[in-house]
Amino acid sequence: MASEVNRTAHAFDKTRFEALLNRRFFYAPAFEIYGGVAGLYDYGPPGSSLQANIINEWRKHFIIEEHMLELDTTIMTPSPVFETSGHVARFADWMVKDTKTGDVLRADHLVKNVLESRLAGHNEASGLAAAPPSEDKKRKKKGAKAAAVALPDEAVKEYETILAQLDNYTGPELGELCRKHDLRNPDTNNEVGEPQQFNLMFKSSIGPTGQHPGYLRPETAQGHFLNFSRLLEFNNGRVPFASAQVGRSFRNEISPRAGLLRVREFTMAEIEHFVDPDNKNHERFSEVKDVVLVLLDRHIQESGGSTTVNMSVGEAVEKGIIANETLAYFMARIYQYLIKIGINPERLRFRQHMGNEMAHYATDCWDAEIHNASGWTECVGCADRAAYDLSVHAARTGAQLVVREALKEPIVTEKEVAEWNKKVLGKTYKADAGVIQQIVDAMDELELLRLKGELAQGEAVIKSSDGKEFNLTPDVVTIERKTFKQSIREYTPNVIEPSFGLGRILYTLLEHSYWSREQDVERGVLSLPPLVAPTKVLIVPLSAREEFDPLIKEVSSKLRRAGVFSRVDDSNTSIGKRYARNDELGTPFGVTLDFASVQKGTMTLRERDTMDQRIGAIDEVIAVVTELVFGNINWAEACRRLPAYDGKQDVD
Amino acid sequence: MASEVNRTAHAFDKTRFEALLNRRFFYAPAFEIYGGVAGLYDYGPPGSSLQANIINEWRKHFIIEEHMLELDTTIMTPSPVFETSGHVARFADWMVKDTKTGDVLRADHLVKNVLESRLAGHNEASGLAAAPPSEDKKRKKKGAKAAAVALPDEAVKEYETILAQLDNYTGPELGELCRKHDLRNPDTNNEVGEPQQFNLMFKSSIGPTGQHPGYLRPETAQGHFLNFSRLLEFNNGRVPFASAQVGRSFRNEISPRAGLLRVREFTMAEIEHFVDPDNKNHERFSEVKDVVLVLLDRHIQESGGSTTVNMSVGEAVEKGIIANETLAYFMARIYQYLIKIGINPERLRFRQHMGNEMAHYATDCWDAEIHNASGWTECVGCADRAAYDLSVHAARTGAQLVVREALKEPIVTEKEVAEWNKKVLGKTYKADAGVIQQIVDAMDELELLRLKGELAQGEAVIKSSDGKEFNLTPDVVTIERKTFKQSIREYTPNVIEPSFGLGRILYTLLEHSYWSREQDVERGVLSLPPLVAPTKVLIVPLSAREEFDPLIKEVSSKLRRAGVFSRVDDSNTSIGKRYARNDELGTPFGVTLDFASVQKGTMTLRERDTMDQRIGAIDEVIAVVTELVFGNINWAEACRRLPAYDGKQDVD
Repeated sequence: MASEVNRTAHAFDKTRFEALLNRRFFYAPAFEIYGGVAGLYDYGPPGSSLQANIINEWRKHFIIEEHMLELDTTIMTPSPVFETSGHVARFADWMVKDTKTGDVLRADHLVKNVLESRLAGHNEASGLAAAPPSEDKKRKKKGAKAAAVALPDEAVKEYETILAQLDNYTGPELGELCRKHDLRNPDTNNEVGEPQQFNLMFKSSIGPTGQHPGYLRPETAQGHFLNFSRLLEFNNGRVPFASAQVGRSFRNEISPRAGLLRVREFTMAEIEHFVDPDNKNHERFSEVKDVVLVLLDRHIQESGGSTTVNMSVGEAVEKGIIANETLAYFMARIYQYLIKIGINPERLRFRQHMGNEMAHYATDCWDAEIHNASGWTECVGCADRAAYDLSVHAARTGAQLVVREALKEPIVTEKEVAEWNKKVLGKTYKADAGVIQQIVDAMDELELLRLKGELAQGEAVIKSSDGKEFNLTPDVVTIERKTFKQSIREYTPNVIEPSFGLGRILYTLLEHSYWSREQDVERGVLSLPPLVAPTKVLIVPLSAREEFDPLIKEVSSKLRRAGVFSRVDDSNTSIGKRYARNDELGTPFGVTLDFASVQKGTMTLRERDTMDQRIGAIDEVIAVVTELVFGNINWAEACRRLPAYDGKQDVD
Repeated sequence: MASEVNRTAHAFDKTRFEALLNRRFFYAPAFEIYGGVAGLYDYGPPGSSLQANIINEWRKHFIIEEHMLELDTTIMTPSPVFETSGHVARFADWMVKDTKTGDVLRADHLVKNVLESRLAGHNEASGLAAAPPSEDKKRKKKGAKAAAVALPDEAVKEYETILAQLDNYTGPELGELCRKHDLRNPDTNNEVGEPQQFNLMFKSSIGPTGQHPGYLRPETAQGHFLNFSRLLEFNNGRVPFASAQVGRSFRNEISPRAGLLRVREFTMAEIEHFVDPDNKNHERFSEVKDVVLVLLDRHIQESGGSTTVNMSVGEAVEKGIIANETLAYFMARIYQYLIKIGINPERLRFRQHMGNEMAHYATDCWDAEIHNASGWTECVGCADRAAYDLSVHAARTGAQLVVREALKEPIVTEKEVAEWNKKVLGKTYKADAGVIQQIVDAMDELELLRLKGELAQGEAVIKSSDGKEFNLTPDVVTIERKTFKQSIREYTPNVIEPSFGLGRILYTLLEHSYWSREQDVERGVLSLPPLVAPTKVLIVPLSAREEFDPLIKEVSSKLRRAGVFSRVDDSNTSIGKRYARNDELGTPFGVTLDFASVQKGTMTLRERDTMDQRIGAIDEVIAVVTELVFGNINWAEACRRLPAYDGKQDVD
């Protein structure tokens, strides 16, 4: 029987957690030996593998499952593209400057930090909450923590309302808040100036002349839109279809301080699903309609609240809370993906954007937010960009970014049409011929019918806008009823865009996976699911003796053939230390080769979370661990198949 | 029996080939609807898949096979890093300006284009070669082609010598060549100015203040070096080991015109293998020593020649042609990788860099060059960067980028050492005590022995550099022979760097894979190996009738479970057209579902190159095609297992 594990014996300790990630080189500040650069991080071997596995599962879950068309477009982008998309004018954050030091702060972050800190101080003073755990000296010096001062009731309520709608304020409104509530730079206690816009795109210059400005893309989306016609053709002209891309994007954040949660360079995965604006139903919606999500809609937030509801996406579409089936379909699929890779479903919600918060291109947007030590963090955006992007690029370039759909039933219409005898027209009216044609062409159905009646009488009189009159006769023009058949419908598709910040997902996943052993808070474990764990099986030879070499090779190659990624740890420390190290790396299983393996062909199997050990013939253990890694069986089942290991080597 | 295929019925036609790649959206100019930007390309669905498969195989062949440590480091890099690495000062190309239009050209490309064009004109005039095939109007207008003028013998010889050592000229030498041979801008026939250096890094600025210049990395390598200490620790302090990274890099090329072969943004795969400078042997060299490569060494080139030799890497190391085993090991592994993904071994050679050609950090370098319509193109560089990078970063930052190796046999040394009685020294000499100590500390072994002898006599006299004399007695100092034991060796490792340009490999692979059907030059085929083909199996239902749906799902899911990536083509055209489209996409196998499939459970299997069709029960065909895709059997064997299909549907 599998042992019980108590994962909540110790409260989450961010300092200890981050020390583990740093020690095991999941990631580290980039250019560390040069003092680092805020917002830039390098992934080490376990971080790179974890990221690769998250991406791999993303490809399977979205691209392969839904036959999406994958793209790989350039990061460097000439300025006209972002002028058209609106990013040059509007992709900006509001920043304020410390009036004395000139330090630059993001305005909304300043408001948030100071108000949250005052509320924390109020709670402390009112005995509502214990004093926060002691912070390191550096933070204290920065003065982020306010004194324990009780606030009037109305101030508490006002602060809470402001925080609930923080993302909805304009720059000038943020400035107004700073003045009204005397919000100062917490690092210096100096006042700050008026909010100013700072464009978040990194700028550069393409080619040797310096005359062609370019930007690093802040999202991969434009690369999809610019290739729309090619993608449509590749898809045999059919809509709906989706393109997908995994790649780097860049945002020159004002003063990033939140680790992997706010960075200047990041890997995104984006889907652009192109859909008929008149029909945003989704063919496979029935497969997900019963998926229940935690929803926080815009009305609740705009009224200062943060109460969520649990609702199936089917019901949410019916009630008009989620705008359409396609948007809801992707929200459900995003949920399924995040749960599959190991995100805690109890710490996942979908929050709708408020009116002013939405990006300039979006008409509706829901964020998948994942809860972590910093609060709720947007990790996936799911926006309905409508026809915005394709329309503006088409208007700027003249390219036809449209779908031409053959109508199953052609639309047949009849209307009155003027038929001219051009020769007679020219001869009779000379210079006035053009004016006469214009007058008739501008007539509506009713006027044409009247003219038709008059001509049937032999003659008609028409009048130009400046009052000149002309007589028309049937030898110059006749009005006839004609049939028109439209067999092609032309439209600009709408775009539903799920956009994933992979670094944020990776970080929150690590946080959700982390715990400390009940008996020793210093023994950290990352309970990453085998699906995404950097290494699936650790091979641990008892000692570095050469006699183990053939067995190590045998086990490695058998696991490789079974599609299981393993690593050998033959370092010069005890088996216990090697397993402890690999608990920190999130390796779910370990096999130990000892003298009994050499003599009797047995091998022990260890499970990371329980530290249970089982034993069996080498091939049997390989078969069991393969099924475990692929999720076909759980540990309890493995325990039924393999007897417990009593810790003694069975050697002669 | 498998049919014979004639792949060389038609000469390679670059225009037709590029039209195919464009039509099937392997790649296309980025920002095409905005008029494009030279040197920037987007990969469409088949190009993205092909690239992903090439990368996937690279990971298996190098990272997994050799237990390399994968990294994912940032592209945006603060200026000090590239100041230290030498890139700010030296990562530049020589450009010349058209004296009248101001157009900018790369100096070495100008020399190459004009001289090659003159030689071609000479050959034409001498009847040595037919006139080149007619070029498109745009090129003709640009005047790249010189008139058919015969040249004196010595000019022909001089031009050929210049071309053979083109990469070895400095900027001023290129300027000298332009003046001496009157080399002008072929587009305008204007003279060009003196060569000037143009730094190839894209520049930007990090953060909102504009005070922190940054560059987009031109290679991923610095990210490895800066993380060296962390990597070493992750590897339990052991050397040799290798780090590896796949990622984007950027070079602001002066005037790129060669499609995917010269671009401003590209995906690279780089390995940094850290090795003991005193022992560059490789543990696994014996596995590759018999691999025969085509080598073009630097001496041949420096004497103006281009004759290659075929030699095993074992022999090349023995003869000192390749500097060491590790370099040679990677050259052989690079060769094996390129052949595996489908590069034609007869169009692959390894060329050694000449003295002036080498990057500023390299001590030896071999390029894997792949032949294509543009000539020989560097696709992989394999350089010995020695200790350059780690040394300069350590010197600049003070970080200890070294290996500390416990010596198996401690090194024991004996030497004479002065032992002071500090108390007596201070009391006796007061302010002079420091000077006296300095004098003795600066003495070498011989002087110490003389001093020892004198002290043994009771007293010694020493002299400071400014002539002051001091008397020393044994109560102040004695000289004793002591034993020292050094158990740690400290050294800066050397780096062997295989660096892959994936876009160039992808392009040349496509060129090597392309041919036209004997019976119709317009019917192009890309014979990509199944290992890298974007889609492995095409599923073709005879018609779009609903009765095929369950079968399509069954076949798709069975292939997916077998690990074979398939696509369904149910578009509204004939089966023949669907297969022709997929021949252009490089899909190696196709299965057709017809009415016999529904009634009798049979399916036909088609092979791309031969267009042979076989038939069998659905499960049997799936088993055969799976073995084909994984390379376990070839088509001839498949033909032995499945009977030929006579083209008639066997339905009741």
